[in-house]
Amino acid sequence: MEIPDKVLNRLTLYHFILDDLREDEVYISSNKFSQLLDIDPSQVRKDLKYIGYQGKCRVGYEAKDLKKAIEKGLGFKKTRDAFIIGAGNLGSALAKYNIFKDYGLNILAMFDTDVNKIGKVINGKEVFDFNKVSVLAKRLNVNIAILTVPRISARGTAQYLAGAGFKYIWNFTPTVLDVPKNVKVWNENLIGSFLQFTNKDEVTENNNDN
Amino acid sequence: MEIPDKVLNRLTLYHFILDDLREDEVYISSNKFSQLLDIDPSQVRKDLKYIGYQGKCRVGYEAKDLKKAIEKGLGFKKTRDAFIIGAGNLGSALAKYNIFKDYGLNILAMFDTDVNKIGKVINGKEVFDFNKVSVLAKRLNVNIAILTVPRISARGTAQYLAGAGFKYIWNFTPTVLDVPKNVKVWNENLIGSFLQFTNKDEVTENNNDN
Repeated sequence: MEIPDKVLNRLTLYHFILDDLREDEVYISSNKFSQLLDIDPSQVRKDLKYIGYQGKCRVGYEAKDLKKAIEKGLGFKKTRDAFIIGAGNLGSALAKYNIFKDYGLNILAMFDTDVNKIGKVINGKEVFDFNKVSVLAKRLNVNIAILTVPRISARGTAQYLAGAGFKYIWNFTPTVLDVPKNVKVWNENLIGSFLQFTNKDEVTENNNDN
Repeated sequence: MEIPDKVLNRLTLYHFILDDLREDEVYISSNKFSQLLDIDPSQVRKDLKYIGYQGKCRVGYEAKDLKKAIEKGLGFKKTRDAFIIGAGNLGSALAKYNIFKDYGLNILAMFDTDVNKIGKVINGKEVFDFNKVSVLAKRLNVNIAILTVPRISARGTAQYLAGAGFKYIWNFTPTVLDVPKNVKVWNENLIGSFLQFTNKDEVTENNNDN
């Protein structure tokens, strides 16, 4: 059964909540999830059905058990290697985002064309000359690129990556890439996020406090 | 008519495409959008209906006209002021993301607790002592916070911001915040994005090349 994007998104958030529990919090109720995420408790139960999770007793879900079920259901343990293309602020921030590894994303190296950046090591990840990306991708068997270059270089870089055999591009640039269909692009559209967020203002602004 | 999140997201991407056209590209076809985004052309037409856009002739959409219609439909011109809380790599990357302003997000200042960061100016935005956030928010009438602090400080910081009168928190930390319901949180869930992206692999991997 394919998990819809919104469900997958919420399941990850449930996992964050479970991860933030204190050691002595053994059980957690659907209400806790629904209150923190401002959704209906029945939604929580529906979402957990997607990963085939049934366990629930009077006092709620057994936290460690549920956490493992989400990890299994979403495949966190399936590690995928990736390169970051562009060692600017955003690329560096993502390189320092250690939590990625817990969720199966392993960033092996970074690439840039700027001689002032090449050779630097950011959170244990070396910045290589972009000229070497093709050779290193083949040698290390990497086909996921996280694209954080300036907007103006985004399309050209993506086409180069497609030619170099990359199959997945996680695009953080505000540009729609033009690559062959066999390359899968995921647009991390921050503008779209912001507009979704603020367009909902009117709807939610007058909710009750709690 | 409320615009569904996915439609809003795509409308933003259409806008990026229009923005990247050369001066001499006066018209654009639905096929161009659908090819770049790997969606059906009928989807493009459906999406444009949400912003009440009808214009279309034999040669396609008039690019400038359509661009303006999207801007109007999505309210890009409605400027909203915001603070970035946390002047680390991610906060700095967002402060340098000049395109936000074109889409109505105006970042006025940044805040941090680190004395080495306070006083710096990043892309024209000064980093202030976090102690001043409440006073400056009131003075400048800002109620949107972009949260880019370390995970460990995320919940405490968010609660402080809620107390200081912020109404909207755009949360870039991998933590579910616990704030009163009158504060609207938008989780920029990168882990969820990554999993959505890679979980679709199996489905799209064997598409035809083009």
